[in-house]
Amino acid sequence: MIIQKLAIVGVGLIGGSFALALKQAGAVGEVLGVGRNPASLNAAVERGLIDRVVDWAEAAQADCILLALPVGETEAVLEQLAPHLKAGAIVTDAGSTKANVVAAARAALGERHVDFVAGHPIAGSEQSGSAAARADLYQGKKVVLTPQADTRADALATVRALWEAAGAQVETLDAALHDRVFAAVSHLPHLAAFALVDELAQRADGDTYFRFAASGFRDFTRIAGSSPEMWRDIALANREAVLAELDAYLAALQGLRTAVATEDADALLAIFSRARAAREHWKKKQDV
Amino acid sequence: MIIQKLAIVGVGLIGGSFALALKQAGAVGEVLGVGRNPASLNAAVERGLIDRVVDWAEAAQADCILLALPVGETEAVLEQLAPHLKAGAIVTDAGSTKANVVAAARAALGERHVDFVAGHPIAGSEQSGSAAARADLYQGKKVVLTPQADTRADALATVRALWEAAGAQVETLDAALHDRVFAAVSHLPHLAAFALVDELAQRADGDTYFRFAASGFRDFTRIAGSSPEMWRDIALANREAVLAELDAYLAALQGLRTAVATEDADALLAIFSRARAAREHWKKKQDV
Repeated sequence: MIIQKLAIVGVGLIGGSFALALKQAGAVGEVLGVGRNPASLNAAVERGLIDRVVDWAEAAQADCILLALPVGETEAVLEQLAPHLKAGAIVTDAGSTKANVVAAARAALGERHVDFVAGHPIAGSEQSGSAAARADLYQGKKVVLTPQADTRADALATVRALWEAAGAQVETLDAALHDRVFAAVSHLPHLAAFALVDELAQRADGDTYFRFAASGFRDFTRIAGSSPEMWRDIALANREAVLAELDAYLAALQGLRTAVATEDADALLAIFSRARAAREHWKKKQDV
Repeated sequence: MIIQKLAIVGVGLIGGSFALALKQAGAVGEVLGVGRNPASLNAAVERGLIDRVVDWAEAAQADCILLALPVGETEAVLEQLAPHLKAGAIVTDAGSTKANVVAAARAALGERHVDFVAGHPIAGSEQSGSAAARADLYQGKKVVLTPQADTRADALATVRALWEAAGAQVETLDAALHDRVFAAVSHLPHLAAFALVDELAQRADGDTYFRFAASGFRDFTRIAGSSPEMWRDIALANREAVLAELDAYLAALQGLRTAVATEDADALLAIFSRARAAREHWKKKQDV
């Protein structure tokens, strides 16, 4: 057993799967759940994701508290927990952006921000809610932790051990670099897919276009099926990095446009060949 | 049996699968193959995709001749066939763009352009070559035919019957509309995926970015694994429609950029929600 009491704030897909994996691994003694929706919490108890529903004060007495919430709610939730936090308690999160979460922890926890370990599991699904939670969600997936220079070393070690017990591969990154990397490989692709589908949907004859869309379109736009609310929050929470990525992408598309407009066959072949080679190289590493 | 002799010019994935499907359906008597690569043609005979390797003059004596080639080669190949075409022979193609193919047929075939039925099977795979050919490639897939006002009605009916015998659903579209629709739902997504991957690959610290790319990135960029040569040819062959789609997409991304820059949460939610709804609506129809 790694810790005795784990508290989950927000028992949905992410929090519920974390709880389930750790229970199955025997890594935690008791799992407490807290949130705003009693019906959802009771369902989580029935599914065995959590053992008991508790209030903020009792959740703050756990050995480790995971926030699995929209990142915009981090500061308000930490303010609720702060007055009740037991000595030595560790707080962590599972949000998609990190610099803003680290800032929220500093603001809400004061001196106790050293007990906060920011984290981001690179796992998910188009499904959400506790009904979708499963013990193997994190199996073989990456989890990025973004500790600060003054984060307690034993708090970091405990959070790492918990994620590893859940089956994940843990890596650490600087919080700002995390946000730039995920703006590039996750946030921008989502925005690009949403923009493409919406642009077609807005056309008067959009149905004719969708009618002939096939498997390439299906894969390219799969991520446009993700939660609009979540992606609105992420785009705003990681605004600066997202703008930088959008600008780089707009410049790349303008370059491609120039090559098409000037019928520069060599430039087109160079762009497409480099992209395919880079993707094949990446895919080979992924498959290992 | 729909026709006695079928000739395939370019016995790769597309041409080979057409031949195999029609043989299995008993829709053709004999299948002739013609091309530039003797080794590839012999392999196609061994695999039973074609019965015999013939020259241009003999291929032109078939009842129906399918060109399954890069669209840029259409006019030159039709010029080879033209002097030998038997009376009543039907010529068709399987290229990804249609206005330029129709123009090539008019230029190369003269009066006989009425025997030419332009077509585009919406099927394919990241694989290519005759070794990848399979009888069920077109099963349940759409094939778009783009006949002209003066195309022979019986030629159109025969080509339609052949594709239906291969398992496809045949639709007709105006050639120019075909090119606009596929610029939007196929060519632009491919270019957008190539541009995104290349932009990351060009960065000095690109490896750090690719390292954290996950399933969303994998699906969004799958089409960047397609043939660079083929997509160079398509981008140039459908240049005007591709430029129009690139401009519409650049405008949509600029709109999204403005919403992020001004922290317009409502505008972002509206774009993402419309996109998700449109994609769900499309997907539901696809699944039927």
